[in-house]
Amino acid sequence: MKRNIYLNKTSLHEAKKRISNAIREEKIIFKQKSETIAIDKSLDRVTSDAVYAKRSSLHYTAAAMDGIAVHSSDTGNASEKNPIILTKEKDFFYINTGQPLPEGFDAVIKIEEVIPVEKNKNRQLSDQVEEMQIFRSVFPGTNIRNIGEDIVSHQIILTANHKIRPMDIGALMAGGLKQIRVRQKPKVAIIPTGEELVDFDTKEMKAGDIPDFNSRMLSNYVFQWGGKPVVYPIIRDIKEDLVNMLKKAIKENDIVTVIAGTSAGTKDFTVKSIKELGEILFHGVAIMPGKPTLTGIIQNIPVIGLPGYPVSFLIAAWEFLQPLIYKNLGLAPKKRKRTKVFMGRKIISKLGNEEFLRVKLAKIEDKLMAYPLSRGSGVISSLVEADAFVRISPLSEGLSLKEDTEAELLDEELNTENTIIIIGSHDLILDVLRNELQVHYPEYNLSSFHTGSMGGLLSLKQGVSHLATSHLLDVETEEYNFPYIRRILKGHEIVVVNMAFRQQGLMVSKGNPKGIRRINDLVRDDIKYINRQKGSGTRVLLDYLLAKNNINNYDIQGYYQEEFTHLMVASAVANKRVDTGLGIYSAAKAFQLDFIPLIKERYDLIIPKKYLNSNGIKNILEIIKTKNFKEQVMKLGGYDLSQCGQILLDEKIN
Amino acid sequence: MKRNIYLNKTSLHEAKKRISNAIREEKIIFKQKSETIAIDKSLDRVTSDAVYAKRSSLHYTAAAMDGIAVHSSDTGNASEKNPIILTKEKDFFYINTGQPLPEGFDAVIKIEEVIPVEKNKNRQLSDQVEEMQIFRSVFPGTNIRNIGEDIVSHQIILTANHKIRPMDIGALMAGGLKQIRVRQKPKVAIIPTGEELVDFDTKEMKAGDIPDFNSRMLSNYVFQWGGKPVVYPIIRDIKEDLVNMLKKAIKENDIVTVIAGTSAGTKDFTVKSIKELGEILFHGVAIMPGKPTLTGIIQNIPVIGLPGYPVSFLIAAWEFLQPLIYKNLGLAPKKRKRTKVFMGRKIISKLGNEEFLRVKLAKIEDKLMAYPLSRGSGVISSLVEADAFVRISPLSEGLSLKEDTEAELLDEELNTENTIIIIGSHDLILDVLRNELQVHYPEYNLSSFHTGSMGGLLSLKQGVSHLATSHLLDVETEEYNFPYIRRILKGHEIVVVNMAFRQQGLMVSKGNPKGIRRINDLVRDDIKYINRQKGSGTRVLLDYLLAKNNINNYDIQGYYQEEFTHLMVASAVANKRVDTGLGIYSAAKAFQLDFIPLIKERYDLIIPKKYLNSNGIKNILEIIKTKNFKEQVMKLGGYDLSQCGQILLDEKIN
Repeated sequence: MKRNIYLNKTSLHEAKKRISNAIREEKIIFKQKSETIAIDKSLDRVTSDAVYAKRSSLHYTAAAMDGIAVHSSDTGNASEKNPIILTKEKDFFYINTGQPLPEGFDAVIKIEEVIPVEKNKNRQLSDQVEEMQIFRSVFPGTNIRNIGEDIVSHQIILTANHKIRPMDIGALMAGGLKQIRVRQKPKVAIIPTGEELVDFDTKEMKAGDIPDFNSRMLSNYVFQWGGKPVVYPIIRDIKEDLVNMLKKAIKENDIVTVIAGTSAGTKDFTVKSIKELGEILFHGVAIMPGKPTLTGIIQNIPVIGLPGYPVSFLIAAWEFLQPLIYKNLGLAPKKRKRTKVFMGRKIISKLGNEEFLRVKLAKIEDKLMAYPLSRGSGVISSLVEADAFVRISPLSEGLSLKEDTEAELLDEELNTENTIIIIGSHDLILDVLRNELQVHYPEYNLSSFHTGSMGGLLSLKQGVSHLATSHLLDVETEEYNFPYIRRILKGHEIVVVNMAFRQQGLMVSKGNPKGIRRINDLVRDDIKYINRQKGSGTRVLLDYLLAKNNINNYDIQGYYQEEFTHLMVASAVANKRVDTGLGIYSAAKAFQLDFIPLIKERYDLIIPKKYLNSNGIKNILEIIKTKNFKEQVMKLGGYDLSQCGQILLDEKIN
Repeated sequence: MKRNIYLNKTSLHEAKKRISNAIREEKIIFKQKSETIAIDKSLDRVTSDAVYAKRSSLHYTAAAMDGIAVHSSDTGNASEKNPIILTKEKDFFYINTGQPLPEGFDAVIKIEEVIPVEKNKNRQLSDQVEEMQIFRSVFPGTNIRNIGEDIVSHQIILTANHKIRPMDIGALMAGGLKQIRVRQKPKVAIIPTGEELVDFDTKEMKAGDIPDFNSRMLSNYVFQWGGKPVVYPIIRDIKEDLVNMLKKAIKENDIVTVIAGTSAGTKDFTVKSIKELGEILFHGVAIMPGKPTLTGIIQNIPVIGLPGYPVSFLIAAWEFLQPLIYKNLGLAPKKRKRTKVFMGRKIISKLGNEEFLRVKLAKIEDKLMAYPLSRGSGVISSLVEADAFVRISPLSEGLSLKEDTEAELLDEELNTENTIIIIGSHDLILDVLRNELQVHYPEYNLSSFHTGSMGGLLSLKQGVSHLATSHLLDVETEEYNFPYIRRILKGHEIVVVNMAFRQQGLMVSKGNPKGIRRINDLVRDDIKYINRQKGSGTRVLLDYLLAKNNINNYDIQGYYQEEFTHLMVASAVANKRVDTGLGIYSAAKAFQLDFIPLIKERYDLIIPKKYLNSNGIKNILEIIKTKNFKEQVMKLGGYDLSQCGQILLDEKIN
């Protein structure tokens, strides 16, 4: 097999410099074409030229108050003692706020400050008398809004390179503009490649099919960034097809992107195709995810090869494509806001690559903590969960627990004040809880990390979570959670609130084809088992059941294969990767599996007392008592909520 | 005249509380209707329900590497010394990254780690041999991507009340979703009122006409906030028309807004009309701008009366309408980010109202300074310039120079690092400079405050500007700027760079109808003059000319009427408010006025030496030397750029 060799693995900084050099040297040429559009359609467009006012605003002299328009020169000697009498339509006119001043008049006296000369006692003020007394003199300009008060004709309203906001539209209209020159939206070609790709809404996904959602994500980003996405048909790993498509795309677009085929595999034709038509600036960037990224130039058009794994793909698009679109539009490059954070978990990093570590952010007692999420370059869900990147230098071997570092925010408007961190045991209830919190308190959000029950208790000890979930069975006392809390959380004031009792048992395929009946069946030669990770309550439960039944774990095929959630175990059974796994009824039900119940266990919320009266925890404890929440949980199946929300323990652990 | 009396002037806090109480008590009812749309069309929409995965991603077991698929059980004893030989299509299959694992196979060995059994020395690796040697054992799952690696079927992908981003679209498609339930966009009625309103693109604006840009700004904001704006025809101050329109609008919309007519004037029908159909929650809010705001309820639909002055209008819309739209969509209320700032100028405030002071922000030596902009409720251009609000408490009488306070950012992405503050004398050149800076350095921006030359020098003394502009003529020495710098900036290291020499003279109407020839004409009875403000170089110049010609300023009609820029003076002459004013040729030319030249003067940039090598100042000094900049300035007329960019002074002032 012939393989591409990366030209070299360029640092992110160097890769970006090569692009900006190519722009400076005019190897890459941006045309920055502009067009004239109606002001009313100009929201979010970028001005291509300075815009000067064509009309003043106000464009006439107006009364600033309701009252009478006067000649200031007529008012010279008026006083409380010697009022001057003015005659209507000669010396004064009635005028309302905003009305134009009659020719030659230069001041307004407020209606409250004048008194009509009463000839008829019964007439109303509103009948507008013929003669009016004034009691003070006014300067020219009193209570008048001058021409150009807001905008004066010929002044600049907007510079070039300005992204138009709704209020700018108001100022432009006030300044007498009807049309405006804006930059044409740069056209961005999106060429998906890969023989495994199928349209995202294909009805029947076969094994090996990959839904093409990258092109959809990217076209939405290009739109958001102000470009015009042009999605081309999928190229199926045939080099000639890609070369022909590139020839077409560079004619029709300002920037070209190719999705996937950028690595060093046998079917990775992207680099070869670009090379055939132009030059390569770099191939391979020392970032993770995002390494198999390349940029080339064909006929002065930049061509970016983006990796196929969705997280690598997006990071590469953010780092390389977005700046090109902004440059094309004349906008300043977007920079992520940085903030100091403390690591909520230790992280080990490989030397040599700059890692974009996805993290969730939350405030724990005034410290902003960063919780690492999945690092897989294919795990788009972890990007969806992420609030920020922690960028780990290529020279770093990682970050220790609570080490301070810097995070780059993915969303400028992020609110980290109200994020509640749950660490511990997984249950489907947490998804329901998370959603209900968002429904009833949109400004709060809940993030749960499934490290298992022991991990939950340890997180409380370390002070890195707001609450823990746990269902740890003590083998000696056969009591749940309390013995572990007493061992691990000495010195802490702890409140334990029951969430649910739930059914644990063996999940098996529909109809139980292998006839699994009890725990002893796990040692059978024809049974493949899948385990939960060490420290999880379910693993503790299994080991308890094995000991009780005198079973040696070495005799179980798959004892050392681990998954992290009940749903993952259920999925492995449903997909026939294994025959059975221990887990909760609701997960089995979700996957329509059969279930052999073994034990009813207690699943609790473990809460440091100091957080009990925080709004976030109060909201959660309120929600779990609602009828709506309980109904949704009962629908999942296998739960007993008779003690849900009850405080089971409230003490300082000694 | 009968006038509305404000029901009361409610505090902002109390006004908002009345609305949220009305929602809680279900006097205001939000329907929060939802609809099903295609995922591909869901950008920026808000989920109405939790979204759970319908398919795992991956949905099949795949190779994570290029290599061979094996049964891990076959590899048990393999080592460097004792390789195991596997047979193609029985013991192993060739497999590329992403391809599905053949049924029953459970691991992948990387292609780099295997060696084909060579039967023919000349064959290529790519020819795919029949037998393969492996040198180590592998566990089940090695180099394999499992089903559900990213998303496992039945897990939550998005909660309700989530605004969909491009990456969410990817996760939803990965999770097998094709359609999604989102909230319908709340329909927001916009009813403009006022007999002075004309469509914004009316060709001939008459005196008294006001272009209706408020409804256009608001419809763009409603769109940006996620609502659906419905703009109704202008109501021309007839109460019955408004009542009928309200009846129609509340049937067709989720929220209704009425623009203007909210004050206490004779033609302000908004409050009466709402009262006729429903109830008023408050009328009059103790904020400035924004006081004449009201909110009522008609048939459970909130009706907001927004003030007609554009700044009041937008502040009221931001404070009252946006939260209602967000609430309707289920989104957390938007909060402006706050930051500590120091006042760049003293500000005096009225007791009793909470003021939303518009400010420009800029960093001066590591301190973020806030510069107050125009406070007029009609001055939309000052909102366009503004970076933030400083909210001045109703109990405060103002803020002193450099006093620290808090600012609320109008734009989350604001970059204040690169804003350059020029304070001093006005010239049309500054608009050109500002635009050129934006064109060549989009990440920089320039903000100029026209306080006059003296104000510029004082700002340098106070340390609140990056540079000053000045054209101060010393009466005794007839020298420009230096004598003033020596008096005012003792102890400062100062660099003076010439910007231009320019023509000062008297601007008069086209054809000079009053036959003004020289400075002595200003005392004529038939001549109305308009002056520049105290401290401006042009005022100093006038006084110098008056003294030289033995003219008493009391003899000039309009000596005490002041404008702040050359364009405003030119505008006053062009609009026949006055007969003449002293100013620069370029302003006269812009308004096509005639011009009587009196003097050629020097207009300089005064720069503290410590800023000379900052990027911002370097960029400016670079730009003013470019051909393009000079050409644009010469087009304005009346400039001599022979010394533009030359350093005229560089010394520590003693």
